[in-house]
Amino acid sequence: MASNQANLPGDLQDQLVAGHQSPLGVTQTTTVALPGFITQSGFKFEAVEVNYQTLGTLAPARDNAILICHGLSGNAHVAGTNAQTGRPGWWDFHVGPGKAIDTDKFFVIATNALGGCNGTTGPGSINPHTGSPFGADFPRVTIGDMVQLQAKLLDHLGIETLFAVVGASMGGMQALAWAVDFPGRLRVCVPIATCTAHNAMQIAFNEIGRCAIVTDPDWNGGNYSEARFPAHGLAVARMVGHVTYLSELAMARKFGRRRQSEAADARQFSIESYLHHQGNSFVKRFDPNSYLCLTRAIDEFDLFEGAAAEEILGRVRARFLVISFTSDWLYPPAQSRELVRLLKRAGLAASYINLDSEYGHDSFLIENPPFADVLRHFLNGEHGLKAPKPATLAGGSSLK
Amino acid sequence: MASNQANLPGDLQDQLVAGHQSPLGVTQTTTVALPGFITQSGFKFEAVEVNYQTLGTLAPARDNAILICHGLSGNAHVAGTNAQTGRPGWWDFHVGPGKAIDTDKFFVIATNALGGCNGTTGPGSINPHTGSPFGADFPRVTIGDMVQLQAKLLDHLGIETLFAVVGASMGGMQALAWAVDFPGRLRVCVPIATCTAHNAMQIAFNEIGRCAIVTDPDWNGGNYSEARFPAHGLAVARMVGHVTYLSELAMARKFGRRRQSEAADARQFSIESYLHHQGNSFVKRFDPNSYLCLTRAIDEFDLFEGAAAEEILGRVRARFLVISFTSDWLYPPAQSRELVRLLKRAGLAASYINLDSEYGHDSFLIENPPFADVLRHFLNGEHGLKAPKPATLAGGSSLK
Repeated sequence: MASNQANLPGDLQDQLVAGHQSPLGVTQTTTVALPGFITQSGFKFEAVEVNYQTLGTLAPARDNAILICHGLSGNAHVAGTNAQTGRPGWWDFHVGPGKAIDTDKFFVIATNALGGCNGTTGPGSINPHTGSPFGADFPRVTIGDMVQLQAKLLDHLGIETLFAVVGASMGGMQALAWAVDFPGRLRVCVPIATCTAHNAMQIAFNEIGRCAIVTDPDWNGGNYSEARFPAHGLAVARMVGHVTYLSELAMARKFGRRRQSEAADARQFSIESYLHHQGNSFVKRFDPNSYLCLTRAIDEFDLFEGAAAEEILGRVRARFLVISFTSDWLYPPAQSRELVRLLKRAGLAASYINLDSEYGHDSFLIENPPFADVLRHFLNGEHGLKAPKPATLAGGSSLK
Repeated sequence: MASNQANLPGDLQDQLVAGHQSPLGVTQTTTVALPGFITQSGFKFEAVEVNYQTLGTLAPARDNAILICHGLSGNAHVAGTNAQTGRPGWWDFHVGPGKAIDTDKFFVIATNALGGCNGTTGPGSINPHTGSPFGADFPRVTIGDMVQLQAKLLDHLGIETLFAVVGASMGGMQALAWAVDFPGRLRVCVPIATCTAHNAMQIAFNEIGRCAIVTDPDWNGGNYSEARFPAHGLAVARMVGHVTYLSELAMARKFGRRRQSEAADARQFSIESYLHHQGNSFVKRFDPNSYLCLTRAIDEFDLFEGAAAEEILGRVRARFLVISFTSDWLYPPAQSRELVRLLKRAGLAASYINLDSEYGHDSFLIENPPFADVLRHFLNGEHGLKAPKPATLAGGSSLK
């Protein structure tokens, strides 16, 4: 497959900036302030800003909306060329006219997650009570809070029921939370490269990143400034994360033991330069407190916490497509298989595919025709089915 | 197997301190200054101190010496109770009377590696030209340098030929270097949980640790003091390392998603506390510059660098036992299998076993009867064979 010869995601992104033409052209995101949001922990925001993007057209029956949820470092700019940066959206490969998530057919909504740093309220936002950024005073948020906020946005947009929620990694946790928390508001659920709860190793890698941030002397208890910013800690956190997103094979093929330079005093390995580059780029675009906030939400997420899986899943009505990638060792396929086993035991419709890909966890971020095909066929097929309710919604016409 | 129910290595060590009685009783290490050592890079030490331990008795024929090489954070105190710390040696499980490496039969030598911080000359040693620690001025050292220094120690001890070199992880690289650099000075070689050269992912994890250290403001270009010591960076480096030494399964069984405390404000996961403990303990016993020096030596090691494997192995005469562990994802069994394939293609005698163990890379450090059995039978069996030379050395009497 041509896509399997592609470079690693980081490099691919750089290439895209240079020459990528999104079929969607330039796209925008919008920010809306939604009043009166209360987190699970009881923190009351007078208003929460949500940065979001919509693509395609909402059908008169309002039955074709797909919510896309991003991973840890993503944002609402899911597809099209960003007017400010000239970069394509993070899923431009998969979202657009005729693509896996077909904007000629579906109305796509993507939001930046609560607690993030790309337009939605997060630790870097101004606390109206102090006039300064929340910083360390930002409340703990949960995956459930992110989903509640997305539901409020749907209310604002006048969308009662989503056709689908699609998300990978942290976004996959949101997709699962949608199915449990709003069983009547989505027809299909597509959790990708994710799990129902982090295991100890997944928590461990996140905790190392958090530790690198909070032990950076410039962290200053979370109240850093641009002038004294915990850049070193955030870069190390990203380097740890980045390695866990890749696969041994992909790294061996791309970098092996090659040197950045053969000069005797600068015989750094290419993988080292690459990691430094990844760490340093991340520092320019991400907020350390958001990193702490979001990784904490991810680690705390437990779909079945304190209850039997059957009980929790008993209320779910969505039909599922669960996707994992063979070389993903951060969210290993065994976690997806276990999810599917539980879904099926609960009597839910669940398809599962473990896609052969050598790019590790990042497989969901790169051009990948087999992945696109699976997503396309499932979404188009499900959309062609008669919607269970309301009875006036009929599919079929949009089937290929 | 009872051993498979054991706690993780860190905890096990803590238990041992409390109640462990080494059959060897209290043992000591010795330090000797060896004059005139030149590194591969051309740095001339007027003298290098080597900290080492010997156990058992050198046979009159001087044919029963086994050199044991430690991993990254090990030391010369391989077995017996340390008089200062009360702790058992790091391989007390496997080295002692009647144990896998039987001190009733073999004369065991263990050295602290060049560049380390446990008695052998390293970055923390005093530079005689300045009267201050070498710090960042310590030369780059290689696995080959470590082995050369061990050879000088053997000269000092009057041992021409080793019966065996046994080492795991970084120590396994030393065992391989012994076989190549001193083909006439060892009969058998036992590389455990190691490889002939780090791949990109192995380098990446080390580089993250190095990056955490050198971006700690207290690193001060390597010229830190006890008062301003890059403790945070070293702790993060150790946390990264520690996670790579464990397996997902072992961490899930030991920690899962359990909390350190159920108090609402201190619901830290147990795995988080454990990692903090590992990081903070390491800071008390390890030198950041040694960490940089040794991980750099490990990453640079390439047994076949710039040559065909057949050519390098063509000069080797040792007989090999290669050991890997099924759950070791830092030094995956595939690397050991590839080593064995190359050894066999070169016409060398090589046995290989991939031991079923759930403890990841740390499997070599813990009580593990199947591992001990494999080591014992191989060493005793090989020692029972007629030594190829000199003709006066005969085995047989020591065979069970």
